[in-house]
Amino acid sequence: MEWIEELYKEMIALRFPVTKKLFSGQSDFQKVEVVETKAHGKLLLNDGCTMVSERDEFIYHEMIAHVPMFAHPNPKRVLIIGGGDGGTAREVLRHPSLEKCVMVEIDKMVVDACKQHIPLTAACLTDPKLELHIEDGVKYLAETKEKFDVIMIDSTDPVGPAAPLFGPEFYGNVKRALNPGGIVTAQGESPFYEPEAQASILKIASQLFSITTFYQFTNMTYPGGYWSFMYASNDVHPLKNFDAKRIQGSGLKMKYYNAEIHKACFAWPNFMLEKLKAYRQGFDNL
Amino acid sequence: MEWIEELYKEMIALRFPVTKKLFSGQSDFQKVEVVETKAHGKLLLNDGCTMVSERDEFIYHEMIAHVPMFAHPNPKRVLIIGGGDGGTAREVLRHPSLEKCVMVEIDKMVVDACKQHIPLTAACLTDPKLELHIEDGVKYLAETKEKFDVIMIDSTDPVGPAAPLFGPEFYGNVKRALNPGGIVTAQGESPFYEPEAQASILKIASQLFSITTFYQFTNMTYPGGYWSFMYASNDVHPLKNFDAKRIQGSGLKMKYYNAEIHKACFAWPNFMLEKLKAYRQGFDNL
Repeated sequence: MEWIEELYKEMIALRFPVTKKLFSGQSDFQKVEVVETKAHGKLLLNDGCTMVSERDEFIYHEMIAHVPMFAHPNPKRVLIIGGGDGGTAREVLRHPSLEKCVMVEIDKMVVDACKQHIPLTAACLTDPKLELHIEDGVKYLAETKEKFDVIMIDSTDPVGPAAPLFGPEFYGNVKRALNPGGIVTAQGESPFYEPEAQASILKIASQLFSITTFYQFTNMTYPGGYWSFMYASNDVHPLKNFDAKRIQGSGLKMKYYNAEIHKACFAWPNFMLEKLKAYRQGFDNL
Repeated sequence: MEWIEELYKEMIALRFPVTKKLFSGQSDFQKVEVVETKAHGKLLLNDGCTMVSERDEFIYHEMIAHVPMFAHPNPKRVLIIGGGDGGTAREVLRHPSLEKCVMVEIDKMVVDACKQHIPLTAACLTDPKLELHIEDGVKYLAETKEKFDVIMIDSTDPVGPAAPLFGPEFYGNVKRALNPGGIVTAQGESPFYEPEAQASILKIASQLFSITTFYQFTNMTYPGGYWSFMYASNDVHPLKNFDAKRIQGSGLKMKYYNAEIHKACFAWPNFMLEKLKAYRQGFDNL
Protein backbone atom coordinates (compact mmCIF):
# COMPACT_ATOMS: atom_id res chain seq x y z
CA MET A 1 0.00 0.00 0.00
CA GLU A 2 1.13 3.55 -0.69
CA TRP A 3 1.45 5.97 2.24
CA ILE A 4 1.27 9.73 2.43
CA GLU A 5 3.53 11.36 4.99
CA GLU A 6 3.44 14.74 6.69
CA LEU A 7 6.88 15.53 7.99
CA TYR A 8 6.85 18.20 10.67
CA LYS A 9 10.17 20.04 10.99
CA GLU A 10 12.25 16.83 10.98
CA MET A 11 10.81 16.18 14.46
CA ILE A 12 7.82 13.92 13.94
CA ALA A 13 6.07 12.46 10.91
CA LEU A 14 2.51 11.22 10.50
CA ARG A 15 1.77 8.64 7.84
CA PHE A 16 -1.53 7.46 6.45
CA PRO A 17 -2.14 4.52 4.09
CA VAL A 18 -3.60 5.85 0.82
CA THR A 19 -6.15 3.85 -1.14
CA LYS A 20 -6.60 6.40 -3.96
CA LYS A 21 -5.06 9.65 -5.14
CA LEU A 22 -7.91 11.92 -6.12
CA PHE A 23 -6.28 15.25 -6.94
CA SER A 24 -2.87 16.84 -7.14
CA GLY A 25 -2.15 20.31 -8.47
CA GLN A 26 0.20 23.25 -8.03
CA SER A 27 -1.67 26.53 -7.59
CA ASP A 28 -0.14 30.01 -7.50
CA PHE A 29 0.13 29.59 -3.74
CA GLN A 30 0.76 25.98 -2.82
CA LYS A 31 0.64 22.32 -3.75
CA VAL A 32 -2.91 21.01 -3.28
CA GLU A 33 -3.62 17.30 -2.86
CA VAL A 34 -6.68 15.20 -2.04
CA VAL A 35 -6.22 11.53 -1.22
CA GLU A 36 -8.52 8.78 0.02
CA THR A 37 -7.06 7.01 3.05
CA LYS A 38 -7.75 3.60 4.50
CA ALA A 39 -9.00 4.77 7.90
CA HIS A 40 -9.40 8.55 7.94
CA GLY A 41 -11.56 9.19 4.89
CA LYS A 42 -10.33 11.76 2.43
CA LEU A 43 -7.47 14.08 3.36
CA LEU A 44 -6.79 17.56 1.97
CA LEU A 45 -3.10 18.48 2.09
CA ASN A 46 -1.63 21.89 1.28
CA ASP A 47 2.14 21.82 0.71
CA GLY A 48 2.21 18.36 2.32
CA CYS A 49 0.48 19.46 5.55
CA THR A 50 -2.84 17.78 6.37
CA MET A 51 -5.56 20.42 6.53
CA VAL A 52 -8.69 18.28 6.73
CA SER A 53 -9.47 14.63 7.34
CA GLU A 54 -13.02 13.48 6.82
CA ARG A 55 -12.79 11.36 9.96
CA ASP A 56 -12.37 14.20 12.43
CA GLU A 57 -12.77 17.50 10.54
CA PHE A 58 -15.92 18.13 12.58
CA ILE A 59 -13.82 18.91 15.64
CA TYR A 60 -11.78 21.71 14.06
CA HIS A 61 -14.76 23.19 12.25
CA GLU A 62 -17.19 23.01 15.14
CA MET A 63 -14.64 24.56 17.49
CA ILE A 64 -13.55 27.51 15.31
CA ALA A 65 -17.22 28.31 14.60
CA HIS A 66 -19.49 27.43 17.52
CA VAL A 67 -17.34 28.78 20.34
CA PRO A 68 -17.66 32.40 19.08
CA MET A 69 -21.14 31.86 17.59
CA PHE A 70 -22.48 30.78 20.99
CA ALA A 71 -20.38 33.26 22.98
CA HIS A 72 -21.91 36.07 20.88
CA PRO A 73 -25.56 36.68 21.87
CA ASN A 74 -26.88 37.16 18.34
CA PRO A 75 -24.38 36.68 15.48
CA LYS A 76 -25.89 37.78 12.17
CA ARG A 77 -22.92 38.62 9.96
CA VAL A 78 -19.84 36.43 9.81
CA LEU A 79 -16.57 36.74 7.87
CA ILE A 80 -14.33 33.75 7.23
CA ILE A 81 -10.79 34.41 5.99
CA GLY A 82 -9.43 31.25 4.38
CA GLY A 83 -11.34 28.04 5.08
CA GLY A 84 -11.39 26.98 1.43
CA ASP A 85 -12.52 23.44 2.24
CA GLY A 86 -15.87 24.87 3.39
CA GLY A 87 -16.05 23.12 6.76
CA THR A 88 -16.05 26.34 8.79
CA ALA A 89 -18.72 27.90 6.56
CA ARG A 90 -20.84 24.75 6.92
CA GLU A 91 -20.93 25.14 10.72
CA VAL A 92 -21.55 28.90 10.56
CA LEU A 93 -24.43 28.42 8.10
CA ARG A 94 -26.24 26.13 10.56
CA HIS A 95 -26.91 29.00 12.96
CA PRO A 96 -30.51 30.26 12.81
CA SER A 97 -29.49 33.85 13.63
CA LEU A 98 -27.16 34.07 10.62
CA GLU A 99 -28.06 36.52 7.87
CA LYS A 100 -24.89 36.53 5.79
CA CYS A 101 -21.54 34.76 5.73
CA VAL A 102 -18.72 36.21 3.63
CA MET A 103 -15.85 33.83 2.92
CA VAL A 104 -12.59 35.09 1.41
CA GLU A 105 -10.28 32.31 0.19
CA ILE A 106 -7.13 33.16 -1.73
CA ASP A 107 -6.74 29.82 -3.51
CA LYS A 108 -9.41 28.80 -6.02
CA MET A 109 -7.75 25.41 -6.48
CA VAL A 110 -8.49 24.48 -2.85
CA VAL A 111 -12.15 25.42 -3.25
CA ASP A 112 -12.52 23.57 -6.56
CA ALA A 113 -10.70 20.44 -5.36
CA CYS A 114 -12.89 20.28 -2.24
CA LYS A 115 -16.10 20.94 -4.16
CA GLN A 116 -15.26 18.03 -6.43
CA HIS A 117 -13.80 15.57 -3.93
CA ILE A 118 -14.83 16.53 -0.37
CA PRO A 119 -18.53 17.45 -0.44
CA LEU A 120 -18.67 16.64 3.28
CA THR A 121 -17.13 20.07 3.88
CA ALA A 122 -17.61 21.87 0.55
CA ALA A 123 -21.22 21.13 -0.37
CA CYS A 124 -22.33 24.17 1.67
CA LEU A 125 -20.41 26.55 -0.59
CA THR A 126 -23.48 27.01 -2.83
CA ASP A 127 -25.66 28.14 0.13
CA PRO A 128 -27.52 31.38 -0.72
CA LYS A 129 -26.45 33.00 2.57
CA LEU A 130 -22.78 32.49 1.60
CA GLU A 131 -20.87 35.09 -0.41
CA LEU A 132 -17.64 33.53 -1.62
CA HIS A 133 -14.76 35.76 -2.76
CA ILE A 134 -11.67 34.26 -4.36
CA GLU A 135 -9.33 36.97 -3.17
CA ASP A 136 -6.50 37.78 -0.77
CA GLY A 137 -8.05 38.05 2.68
CA VAL A 138 -5.46 40.64 3.74
CA LYS A 139 -6.46 42.90 0.84
CA TYR A 140 -10.17 42.26 1.40
CA LEU A 141 -10.00 43.29 5.06
CA ALA A 142 -7.88 46.35 4.29
CA GLU A 143 -10.50 47.60 1.83
CA THR A 144 -13.89 46.37 3.01
CA LYS A 145 -16.45 48.75 4.49
CA GLU A 146 -18.60 45.84 5.71
CA LYS A 147 -18.88 45.06 9.41
CA PHE A 148 -19.18 41.65 11.04
CA ASP A 149 -20.21 40.17 14.38
CA VAL A 150 -17.72 37.31 14.18
CA ILE A 151 -14.55 37.01 12.10
CA MET A 152 -12.86 33.60 11.79
CA ILE A 153 -9.29 33.31 10.51
CA ASP A 154 -9.22 29.74 9.19
CA SER A 155 -5.70 29.80 7.83
CA THR A 156 -2.73 27.55 7.26
CA ASP A 157 0.47 28.05 9.25
CA PRO A 158 2.34 31.39 9.37
CA VAL A 159 4.58 30.57 6.42
CA GLY A 160 3.91 31.17 2.71
CA PRO A 161 0.55 32.65 1.69
CA ALA A 162 -0.85 32.78 5.24
CA ALA A 163 2.08 34.66 6.87
CA PRO A 164 0.47 38.15 6.74
CA LEU A 165 -2.62 36.72 8.51
CA PHE A 166 -0.50 36.53 11.64
CA GLY A 167 0.66 40.15 11.56
CA PRO A 168 -0.37 43.35 13.43
CA GLU A 169 -1.58 45.27 10.37
CA PHE A 170 -4.01 42.50 9.51
CA TYR A 171 -5.36 42.39 13.06
CA GLY A 172 -5.85 46.15 13.03
CA ASN A 173 -8.14 45.66 10.04
CA VAL A 174 -9.91 42.77 11.76
CA LYS A 175 -10.68 45.06 14.67
CA ARG A 176 -11.93 47.80 12.35
CA ALA A 177 -14.28 45.38 10.57
CA LEU A 178 -15.89 44.10 13.77
CA ASN A 179 -19.23 45.42 14.98
CA PRO A 180 -19.45 46.44 18.66
CA GLY A 181 -19.62 43.17 20.60
CA GLY A 182 -17.61 41.46 17.89
CA ILE A 183 -15.39 38.40 18.30
CA VAL A 184 -12.44 37.06 16.30
CA THR A 185 -11.18 33.48 16.37
CA ALA A 186 -8.12 32.23 14.51
CA GLN A 187 -6.22 29.02 13.92
CA GLY A 188 -3.78 29.18 16.82
CA GLU A 189 -1.10 26.54 16.21
CA SER A 190 0.25 23.79 18.47
CA PRO A 191 0.92 24.55 22.14
CA PHE A 192 3.56 21.81 22.03
CA TYR A 193 5.48 22.79 18.95
CA GLU A 194 4.74 26.47 18.29
CA PRO A 195 4.82 28.42 21.55
CA GLU A 196 6.68 31.28 19.84
CA ALA A 197 4.02 31.60 17.11
CA GLN A 198 1.36 31.48 19.83
CA ALA A 199 3.11 34.20 21.82
CA SER A 200 3.40 36.36 18.72
CA ILE A 201 -0.26 36.18 17.73
CA LEU A 202 -1.55 36.58 21.28
CA LYS A 203 0.74 39.55 21.89
CA ILE A 204 -0.58 41.26 18.75
CA ALA A 205 -4.19 40.56 19.72
CA SER A 206 -3.64 41.71 23.31
CA GLN A 207 -2.63 45.15 22.06
CA LEU A 208 -5.95 45.53 20.21
CA PHE A 209 -8.46 43.62 22.36
CA SER A 210 -9.15 43.50 26.10
CA ILE A 211 -10.15 39.82 26.17
CA THR A 212 -7.55 37.52 24.61
CA THR A 213 -6.86 33.83 25.05
CA PHE A 214 -6.44 30.48 23.35
CA TYR A 215 -8.91 27.65 23.50
CA GLN A 216 -7.99 24.11 22.72
CA PHE A 217 -9.13 21.05 20.85
CA THR A 218 -7.78 17.79 19.59
CA ASN A 219 -6.95 16.88 16.00
CA MET A 220 -5.87 13.35 15.19
CA THR A 221 -4.16 14.30 11.92
CA TYR A 222 -2.15 17.30 13.15
CA PRO A 223 1.33 16.74 14.64
CA GLY A 224 1.06 16.12 18.39
CA GLY A 225 -2.75 16.01 18.20
CA TYR A 226 -3.14 19.05 20.45
CA TRP A 227 -4.17 22.29 18.76
CA SER A 228 -5.62 25.69 19.55
CA PHE A 229 -7.67 28.64 18.38
CA MET A 230 -7.02 32.21 19.42
CA TYR A 231 -10.05 34.10 20.78
CA ALA A 232 -10.19 37.90 21.05
CA SER A 233 -12.92 40.45 21.75
CA ASN A 234 -13.32 43.82 23.39
CA ASP A 235 -16.76 43.10 24.79
CA VAL A 236 -17.66 39.43 24.89
CA HIS A 237 -15.98 37.23 27.47
CA PRO A 238 -16.26 33.62 26.25
CA LEU A 239 -17.11 32.27 29.71
CA LYS A 240 -18.62 35.14 31.71
CA ASN A 241 -20.99 36.06 28.86
CA PHE A 242 -21.75 32.45 27.90
CA ASP A 243 -25.37 31.30 28.15
CA ALA A 244 -25.41 27.51 27.73
CA LYS A 245 -29.16 27.57 27.14
CA ARG A 246 -28.56 29.17 23.73
CA ILE A 247 -27.09 25.87 22.50
CA GLN A 248 -30.22 23.95 23.40
CA GLY A 249 -32.38 26.78 22.07
CA SER A 250 -30.64 26.65 18.69
CA GLY A 251 -31.73 23.07 18.11
CA LEU A 252 -28.28 22.29 16.71
CA LYS A 253 -26.74 18.88 17.37
CA MET A 254 -22.99 18.80 17.17
CA LYS A 255 -20.61 15.82 17.13
CA TYR A 256 -17.97 17.40 19.39
CA TYR A 257 -19.04 20.79 20.75
CA ASN A 258 -21.39 21.17 23.72
CA ALA A 259 -21.69 23.43 26.77
CA GLU A 260 -19.25 21.35 28.84
CA ILE A 261 -16.67 21.48 26.05
CA HIS A 262 -17.21 25.24 25.62
CA LYS A 263 -16.24 25.83 29.23
CA ALA A 264 -13.47 23.21 29.34
CA CYS A 265 -11.61 24.26 26.20
CA PHE A 266 -10.43 27.51 27.81
CA ALA A 267 -8.51 25.72 30.61
CA TRP A 268 -4.78 26.13 30.09
CA PRO A 269 -2.15 23.69 31.31
CA ASN A 270 0.65 25.19 33.38
CA PHE A 271 3.24 24.96 30.60
CA MET A 272 1.09 27.27 28.46
CA LEU A 273 0.45 29.65 31.33
CA GLU A 274 4.16 29.96 32.00
CA LYS A 275 4.87 30.98 28.43
CA LEU A 276 1.82 33.04 27.56
CA LYS A 277 0.06 34.41 30.62
CA ALA A 278 1.38 37.92 29.99
CA TYR A 279 -0.85 38.07 26.93
CA ARG A 280 -3.92 36.24 28.28
CA GLN A 281 -6.31 39.04 29.16
CA GLY A 282 -9.65 38.98 30.96
CA PHE A 283 -8.89 35.74 32.80
CA ASP A 284 -7.77 35.12 36.36
CA ASN A 285 -4.35 33.61 35.92
CA LEU A 286 -3.51 30.81 38.34
CA MET B 1 18.98 9.62 9.86
CA GLU B 2 17.29 6.49 11.17
CA TRP B 3 13.62 6.65 12.17
CA ILE B 4 11.55 4.61 14.59
CA GLU B 5 7.95 4.03 13.61
CA GLU B 6 4.86 3.10 15.60
CA LEU B 7 2.29 1.61 13.27
CA TYR B 8 -1.20 1.68 14.71
CA LYS B 9 -3.48 -0.96 13.18
CA GLU B 10 -2.47 -0.14 9.59
CA MET B 11 -4.40 3.13 10.06
CA ILE B 12 -1.84 5.72 11.08
CA ALA B 13 1.86 5.65 11.83
CA LEU B 14 3.99 8.00 13.90
CA ARG B 15 7.69 8.30 13.11
CA PHE B 16 10.48 9.88 15.12
CA PRO B 17 14.06 10.51 14.00
CA VAL B 18 16.42 8.48 16.21
CA THR B 19 19.83 9.80 17.16
CA LYS B 20 20.88 6.81 19.30
CA LYS B 21 19.60 3.34 20.15
CA LEU B 22 20.11 2.88 23.87
CA PHE B 23 18.51 -0.46 24.67
CA SER B 24 16.73 -3.32 22.97
CA GLY B 25 15.72 -6.58 24.61
CA GLN B 26 13.08 -9.28 24.52
CA SER B 27 11.62 -9.99 27.96
CA ASP B 28 9.24 -12.81 28.86
CA PHE B 29 6.40 -10.41 28.07
CA GLN B 30 7.35 -8.02 25.31
CA LYS B 31 10.04 -6.33 23.26
CA VAL B 32 11.51 -3.43 25.23
CA GLU B 33 13.35 -0.57 23.50
CA VAL B 34 14.80 2.76 24.57
CA VAL B 35 15.91 5.22 21.89
CA GLU B 36 17.13 8.80 21.94
CA THR B 37 15.19 10.96 19.46
CA LYS B 38 16.04 14.24 17.81
CA ALA B 39 13.16 16.27 19.25
CA HIS B 40 11.26 14.24 21.87
CA GLY B 41 14.04 13.13 24.22
CA LYS B 42 14.26 9.45 25.00
CA LEU B 43 11.38 7.14 24.08
CA LEU B 44 10.43 3.86 25.77
CA LEU B 45 8.66 1.46 23.41
CA ASN B 46 7.04 -1.84 24.38
CA ASP B 47 6.32 -4.11 21.41
CA GLY B 48 6.81 -1.11 19.13
CA CYS B 49 4.27 1.14 20.90
CA THR B 50 5.57 4.35 22.43
CA MET B 51 4.94 4.30 26.17
CA VAL B 52 6.91 7.32 27.32
CA SER B 53 8.59 10.28 25.67
CA GLU B 54 10.77 12.50 27.82
CA ARG B 55 9.32 15.56 26.10
CA ASP B 56 5.75 15.15 27.31
CA GLU B 57 5.64 12.24 29.78
CA PHE B 58 4.75 14.75 32.47
CA ILE B 59 1.24 15.05 31.06
CA TYR B 60 0.36 11.35 31.28
CA HIS B 61 1.98 10.91 34.68
CA GLU B 62 0.59 14.07 36.26
CA MET B 63 -2.90 13.25 35.02
CA ILE B 64 -3.07 9.60 36.11
CA ALA B 65 -1.75 10.59 39.55
CA HIS B 66 -2.84 14.08 40.58
CA VAL B 67 -6.48 13.87 39.49
CA PRO B 68 -7.26 11.12 42.04
CA MET B 69 -4.68 12.34 44.57
CA PHE B 70 -6.35 15.76 44.72
CA ALA B 71 -9.90 14.39 44.41
CA HIS B 72 -9.22 12.24 47.48
CA PRO B 73 -9.14 14.38 50.65
CA ASN B 74 -6.17 12.62 52.29
CA PRO B 75 -4.49 9.87 50.25
CA LYS B 76 -1.96 7.97 52.36
CA ARG B 77 -1.61 4.57 50.70
CA VAL B 78 -1.36 4.18 46.94
CA LEU B 79 -1.05 1.11 44.71
CA ILE B 80 0.28 1.34 41.16
CA ILE B 81 -0.24 -1.66 38.86
CA GLY B 82 2.25 -1.45 35.99
CA GLY B 83 3.99 1.86 35.51
CA GLY B 84 7.44 0.29 35.17
CA ASP B 85 9.01 3.48 33.84
CA GLY B 86 8.47 5.09 37.26
CA GLY B 87 6.75 8.29 36.09
CA THR B 88 3.48 7.60 37.89
CA ALA B 89 5.29 6.70 41.12
CA ARG B 90 7.34 9.91 40.84
CA GLU B 91 4.18 12.05 40.85
CA VAL B 92 2.55 10.02 43.66
CA LEU B 93 5.66 10.31 45.82
CA ARG B 94 5.52 14.12 45.67
CA HIS B 95 2.34 14.21 47.75
CA PRO B 96 2.99 15.25 51.37
CA SER B 97 0.11 13.08 52.68
CA LEU B 98 1.62 9.89 51.21
CA GLU B 99 2.80 7.22 53.65
CA LYS B 100 3.40 4.30 51.30
CA CYS B 101 3.28 3.59 47.59
CA VAL B 102 3.26 -0.02 46.41
CA MET B 103 4.14 -0.55 42.76
CA VAL B 104 3.61 -3.91 41.07
CA GLU B 105 5.27 -4.22 37.66
CA ILE B 106 5.32 -7.54 35.82
CA ASP B 107 8.34 -6.82 33.62
CA LYS B 108 11.72 -6.36 35.32
CA MET B 109 13.30 -5.48 31.98
CA VAL B 110 11.18 -2.32 31.71
CA VAL B 111 12.19 -1.22 35.20
CA ASP B 112 15.87 -1.96 34.63
CA ALA B 113 15.98 -0.30 31.19
CA CYS B 114 14.31 2.84 32.57
CA LYS B 115 16.53 2.95 35.67
CA GLN B 116 19.57 2.86 33.41
CA HIS B 117 18.40 5.09 30.56
CA ILE B 118 15.42 7.23 31.67
CA PRO B 119 16.21 8.56 35.16
CA LEU B 120 13.73 11.40 34.49
CA THR B 121 10.97 8.91 35.31
CA ALA B 122 12.81 6.06 37.04
CA ALA B 123 15.10 7.82 39.52
CA CYS B 124 12.26 7.83 42.08
CA LEU B 125 12.18 4.03 42.21
CA THR B 126 14.69 3.99 45.08
CA ASP B 127 12.49 6.25 47.26
CA PRO B 128 12.07 4.77 50.77
CA LYS B 129 8.29 5.25 50.63
CA LEU B 130 8.12 3.07 47.50
CA GLU B 131 7.71 -0.72 47.75
CA LEU B 132 8.44 -2.21 44.33
CA HIS B 133 7.24 -5.73 43.52
CA ILE B 134 8.28 -7.42 40.28
CA GLU B 135 5.17 -9.55 40.00
CA ASP B 136 1.94 -10.04 38.06
CA GLY B 137 -0.43 -7.28 39.18
CA VAL B 138 -3.46 -9.53 38.63
CA LYS B 139 -2.03 -12.13 41.03
CA TYR B 140 -0.93 -9.47 43.52
CA LEU B 141 -4.39 -7.94 43.73
CA ALA B 142 -6.10 -11.33 43.99
CA GLU B 143 -3.95 -12.22 47.01
CA THR B 144 -3.14 -8.99 48.83
CA LYS B 145 -4.72 -8.17 52.18
CA GLU B 146 -3.46 -4.58 52.02
CA LYS B 147 -5.86 -1.70 51.48
CA PHE B 148 -5.28 1.49 49.51
CA ASP B 149 -6.79 4.94 49.16
CA VAL B 150 -5.95 5.22 45.46
CA ILE B 151 -5.18 2.48 42.94
CA MET B 152 -3.71 3.44 39.55
CA ILE B 153 -3.71 0.97 36.66
CA ASP B 154 -0.83 2.26 34.54
CA SER B 155 -0.92 -0.44 31.89
CA THR B 156 -0.26 -1.02 28.22
CA ASP B 157 -3.15 -1.75 25.85
CA PRO B 158 -5.59 -4.65 26.40
CA VAL B 159 -3.55 -7.12 24.37
CA GLY B 160 -0.74 -9.40 25.56
CA PRO B 161 0.39 -9.14 29.19
CA ALA B 162 -2.02 -6.34 30.08
CA ALA B 163 -5.25 -7.99 28.79
CA PRO B 164 -6.43 -9.32 32.21
CA LEU B 165 -6.08 -5.78 33.63
CA PHE B 166 -9.14 -4.85 31.60
CA GLY B 167 -11.34 -7.68 32.91
CA PRO B 168 -14.16 -7.88 35.51
CA GLU B 169 -12.36 -10.26 37.88
CA PHE B 170 -9.43 -7.87 38.17
CA TYR B 171 -11.74 -4.93 38.91
CA GLY B 172 -13.53 -6.94 41.58
CA ASN B 173 -10.17 -7.28 43.32
CA VAL B 174 -9.42 -3.57 42.80
CA LYS B 175 -12.67 -2.75 44.59
CA ARG B 176 -11.88 -5.17 47.44
CA ALA B 177 -8.43 -3.59 47.93
CA LEU B 178 -9.76 -0.04 48.20
CA ASN B 179 -10.32 1.66 51.53
CA PRO B 180 -13.68 3.41 52.05
CA GLY B 181 -13.47 6.62 50.04
CA GLY B 182 -11.08 4.96 47.60
CA ILE B 183 -10.53 5.87 43.97
CA VAL B 184 -9.21 3.91 40.98
CA THR B 185 -7.80 5.43 37.81
CA ALA B 186 -6.69 3.45 34.76
CA GLN B 187 -5.16 4.00 31.35
CA GLY B 188 -8.33 4.40 29.32
CA GLU B 189 -7.33 4.20 25.63
CA SER B 190 -8.11 6.53 22.71
CA PRO B 191 -11.62 7.97 22.36
CA PHE B 192 -10.96 8.16 18.61
CA TYR B 193 -9.67 4.68 17.94
CA GLU B 194 -10.83 2.48 20.81
CA PRO B 195 -14.45 3.28 21.70
CA GLU B 196 -15.20 -0.46 22.10
CA ALA B 197 -12.35 -0.92 24.60
CA GLN B 198 -13.57 2.19 26.42
CA ALA B 199 -17.13 0.87 26.54
CA SER B 200 -15.90 -2.46 27.87
CA ILE B 201 -13.83 -1.04 30.73
CA LEU B 202 -16.43 1.56 31.71
CA LYS B 203 -19.22 -1.04 31.68
CA ILE B 204 -17.20 -3.28 33.99
CA ALA B 205 -16.43 -0.39 36.34
CA SER B 206 -20.04 0.84 36.32
CA GLN B 207 -21.19 -2.51 37.74
CA LEU B 208 -18.84 -2.13 40.72
CA PHE B 209 -18.70 1.63 41.37
CA SER B 210 -21.37 4.33 41.55
CA ILE B 211 -19.18 7.10 40.09
CA THR B 212 -17.59 6.15 36.76
CA THR B 213 -16.24 8.28 33.93
CA PHE B 214 -13.29 9.00 31.69
CA TYR B 215 -11.13 12.07 31.90
CA GLN B 216 -8.96 13.23 29.08
CA PHE B 217 -5.52 14.51 28.26
CA THR B 218 -3.26 15.00 25.31
CA ASN B 219 -0.23 12.90 24.38
CA MET B 220 1.90 13.95 21.43
CA THR B 221 3.43 10.50 20.93
CA TYR B 222 0.24 8.40 21.07
CA PRO B 223 -1.78 7.85 17.86
CA GLY B 224 -4.32 10.63 17.42
CA GLY B 225 -2.88 12.58 20.35
CA TYR B 226 -6.11 12.34 22.36
CA TRP B 227 -6.14 9.91 25.26
CA SER B 228 -8.05 9.11 28.43
CA PHE B 229 -8.00 7.71 31.92
CA MET B 230 -10.90 5.87 33.52
CA TYR B 231 -11.98 7.16 36.95
CA ALA B 232 -14.12 5.13 39.35
CA SER B 233 -15.12 5.48 43.00
CA ASN B 234 -18.05 4.67 45.24
CA ASP B 235 -17.64 7.75 47.40
CA VAL B 236 -15.52 10.48 45.87
CA HIS B 237 -16.95 12.48 42.98
CA PRO B 238 -14.02 14.04 41.11
CA LEU B 239 -15.77 17.40 40.70
CA LYS B 240 -18.35 17.70 43.48
CA ASN B 241 -15.81 16.64 46.13
CA PHE B 242 -12.92 18.60 44.61
CA ASP B 243 -11.34 21.32 46.74
CA ALA B 244 -9.04 23.35 44.49
CA LYS B 245 -7.36 24.90 47.54
CA ARG B 246 -5.72 21.56 48.31
CA ILE B 247 -3.50 22.01 45.25
CA GLN B 248 -2.18 25.34 46.46
CA GLY B 249 -1.92 23.95 50.00
CA SER B 250 0.26 21.06 48.81
CA GLY B 251 2.93 23.43 47.55
CA LEU B 252 3.33 21.22 44.44
CA LYS B 253 4.09 22.86 41.11
CA MET B 254 3.05 20.83 38.10
CA LYS B 255 3.88 21.35 34.43
CA TYR B 256 0.41 20.41 33.13
CA TYR B 257 -2.08 19.78 35.94
CA ASN B 258 -3.85 22.59 37.78
CA ALA B 259 -7.34 23.25 39.15
CA GLU B 260 -8.69 24.48 35.78
CA ILE B 261 -7.40 21.36 34.06
CA HIS B 262 -8.84 19.14 36.82
CA LYS B 263 -12.31 20.48 36.12
CA ALA B 264 -11.95 20.66 32.34
CA CYS B 265 -10.60 17.15 31.76
CA PHE B 266 -13.96 15.59 32.68
CA ALA B 267 -15.85 17.35 29.86
CA TRP B 268 -16.88 14.85 27.20
CA PRO B 269 -17.42 15.67 23.55
CA ASN B 270 -20.74 14.57 22.09
CA PHE B 271 -19.27 11.68 20.13
CA MET B 272 -18.07 10.10 23.40
CA LEU B 273 -21.39 10.76 25.13
CA GLU B 274 -23.27 9.05 22.33
CA LYS B 275 -21.23 5.90 22.67
CA LEU B 276 -20.63 5.74 26.41
CA LYS B 277 -23.18 7.72 28.38
CA ALA B 278 -24.96 4.53 29.53
CA TYR B 279 -21.88 3.75 31.62
CA ARG B 280 -20.99 7.26 32.83
CA GLN B 281 -22.39 7.38 36.36
CA GLY B 282 -22.69 10.25 38.81
CA PHE B 283 -22.70 12.92 36.09
CA ASP B 284 -25.53 14.89 34.56
CA ASN B 285 -25.51 13.74 30.98
CA LEU B 286 -26.18 16.44 28.42
